[in-house]
Amino acid sequence: MPVNLPVPIAEQLIPVPGLMLGVAEAGVRKANRKDLCVLLPAAGTVVGAVFTRNRYCAAPVQVCREHLAGSQGIRALIINTGNANAGTGAPGLANARSTCAALAQTLNIAPEQVLPFSTGVIMEPLPVERVIAGLPATLQDAKPDNWLRAAQAIMTTDTQPKAISRQVQVGGCTVTITGMAKGAGMIRPNMATMLGFVATDANLSPELAQEMTVWLADRSFNRVTVDGDTSTNDSFVLLATGQASHARIDSMQTADAEALKAGLLEVAQYLAHAMVRDGEGATKFMTICIEGGRSTEECLKAGYAIAHSPLVKTAFFASDPNLGRILAAVGYAGIDDLDQSRIEMHLDDVHVVTQGGRHPAYAEADGARVMAQSEITVRVNLGRGSCTDTVWTCDFSHDYVSINADYRS
Amino acid sequence: MPVNLPVPIAEQLIPVPGLMLGVAEAGVRKANRKDLCVLLPAAGTVVGAVFTRNRYCAAPVQVCREHLAGSQGIRALIINTGNANAGTGAPGLANARSTCAALAQTLNIAPEQVLPFSTGVIMEPLPVERVIAGLPATLQDAKPDNWLRAAQAIMTTDTQPKAISRQVQVGGCTVTITGMAKGAGMIRPNMATMLGFVATDANLSPELAQEMTVWLADRSFNRVTVDGDTSTNDSFVLLATGQASHARIDSMQTADAEALKAGLLEVAQYLAHAMVRDGEGATKFMTICIEGGRSTEECLKAGYAIAHSPLVKTAFFASDPNLGRILAAVGYAGIDDLDQSRIEMHLDDVHVVTQGGRHPAYAEADGARVMAQSEITVRVNLGRGSCTDTVWTCDFSHDYVSINADYRS
Repeated sequence: MPVNLPVPIAEQLIPVPGLMLGVAEAGVRKANRKDLCVLLPAAGTVVGAVFTRNRYCAAPVQVCREHLAGSQGIRALIINTGNANAGTGAPGLANARSTCAALAQTLNIAPEQVLPFSTGVIMEPLPVERVIAGLPATLQDAKPDNWLRAAQAIMTTDTQPKAISRQVQVGGCTVTITGMAKGAGMIRPNMATMLGFVATDANLSPELAQEMTVWLADRSFNRVTVDGDTSTNDSFVLLATGQASHARIDSMQTADAEALKAGLLEVAQYLAHAMVRDGEGATKFMTICIEGGRSTEECLKAGYAIAHSPLVKTAFFASDPNLGRILAAVGYAGIDDLDQSRIEMHLDDVHVVTQGGRHPAYAEADGARVMAQSEITVRVNLGRGSCTDTVWTCDFSHDYVSINADYRS
Repeated sequence: MPVNLPVPIAEQLIPVPGLMLGVAEAGVRKANRKDLCVLLPAAGTVVGAVFTRNRYCAAPVQVCREHLAGSQGIRALIINTGNANAGTGAPGLANARSTCAALAQTLNIAPEQVLPFSTGVIMEPLPVERVIAGLPATLQDAKPDNWLRAAQAIMTTDTQPKAISRQVQVGGCTVTITGMAKGAGMIRPNMATMLGFVATDANLSPELAQEMTVWLADRSFNRVTVDGDTSTNDSFVLLATGQASHARIDSMQTADAEALKAGLLEVAQYLAHAMVRDGEGATKFMTICIEGGRSTEECLKAGYAIAHSPLVKTAFFASDPNLGRILAAVGYAGIDDLDQSRIEMHLDDVHVVTQGGRHPAYAEADGARVMAQSEITVRVNLGRGSCTDTVWTCDFSHDYVSINADYRS
């Protein structure tokens, strides 16, 4: 049961001019389930993309990087669930290339104009013949108002689809932004997430599209974690079809860029938070805000140490204000010259720790009151500098163990 | 239920000449439980000690460091369970000092000759008056053959005491080594562990005692992890009473030193492994051996990435050979120029991965056969160099969540 995450409604997902989506049942791993999804951006679309920094990156991630380095525009994205095509060696790479080639032939484009994505079990051969056999059905299904079905087709252990639309005013035009993503385990994105796609009809230069993608990822997908496991397949793609009639934007700092960035950030953060809210077994949504750091890096070290601690996460699951576990995590976060006597901690509005020790006025009943909520902010001040950063995560429950002990069976 | 860990038998724990141990009920957190333990080494005992690198180290750890820096010999160690005296600020430090002063007064020694240790809940005030009131009873109880009761008194979430004895021949003498330790959660020692004590009547120089303690910790307690949470209170202490009649050892490389090191290592590794075998909720004992690294550091990065991955640990709990999760962990371990096409992996004797992909001869039934065992070795070759290192860990079960969601209630 996700934490405060509404199920998207098809009618509220606004089509993006210049983009069609189609889904089909290819039987990659299981029968009778939509497991193949195609995105067809119109000619002229510019693409920004960031991928996992996991050195064991999947075959499709490697192929995406190659194809994005080419000079021809991207005209198709093909996504399968049920198999990650990771840890599959040279045959896996050949399978990813064959999929692109087959789709390119049908569409009469070059294979380099196709980006492949896979998600599912690692180290099992991709049933490439079933994927290729399913391609025509995805194309027949393709239409602009297919976002909800696409968001459903890319789910794995997600309990519900994740998608959202926003419209912003850019250069006198109404620009649409619609995005979708999937979670829900092996989530500790490093550059991007386990499949996130955001499309807009805004008109951007290719360079700005890439710059904006990195900017977005660092404020959304790169700040969430479920279990600390960075996936082999993380991919976040921004598609800008350019069909809105405003003047092309080519710098991050203009008023038009700012308006667009605000809308994109809202969509990307919504999707990133949705992955946490629907994190495997999640019952609590936690915002970990680290203040008073000397650098972004040390704020993130402390934030992720807290967000990854099994002891912290199980205490939140139990609604138990066993808050010393948070201090212990800050202490082992790897900030070598941390002075514990300068630490302050708040749980929502409750001042728990001052000068490194329990606040004299802190009463356990106040901590218990906050811990009983489904949304909790932990705020730790390191007392070292002026940097601040935020990480979002969920708790660690019996259901996480059940889901991951049973995932393949 | 610990994994293949016999309950120690009192008669098999050999007293160490020059050391007495006593226990008592002080009611630190709960009534009717032995929660206070004193160790009384004779005059002339040399001490080696390593402590947590957690910057949020507990008050007793800070006091231990000060007292060990003094010039007088250590004559007493006082250990309480039920409260970690960590995250307690200046009052916590004062409480640790008061405990030492009270014990020193009774024994007619200096406060600096006492080392304090605490384990239990973090961020709650130590009930110092109850600890001090319990001291006389520990002294009345003190005798050399009290190791099993002492090992029981220092338990927290441990399901059984952990203690062992060995005897080795050093310089023509029979030297005794007896040790005890406690786990069982917040276990990812960094320098040492959540309370390990090894005593011997061997005759060592003070400098060698410290050198040998670091050497031992790096081959035992510093190579195990349960949940990746480095404790605020980790402490590992070697007591050498010097009452054996062999010539004093003052170098790591002599034949006598080698004989002693072998015995000490056997005891320290047994205790470190015992913490994993009795790790919270453990059902499997896993040996993670990383070969072919360029440095010890990168072997440990890969080893700990595997050992800390919730996805790997839940797959082992399920006896599910979902081994791609191990590859993903190796990939995000932080070895920036790792070449996945050189990775080899074995599960016990089964060759699972070759050249980064699934081995053509690997059959899932073989993986499943090994995964069903209670003791499993994962061997990953990084294909980069000649360094090898080993990390020991356990799986991640429903019981881990239950234990830590209920710990304080």
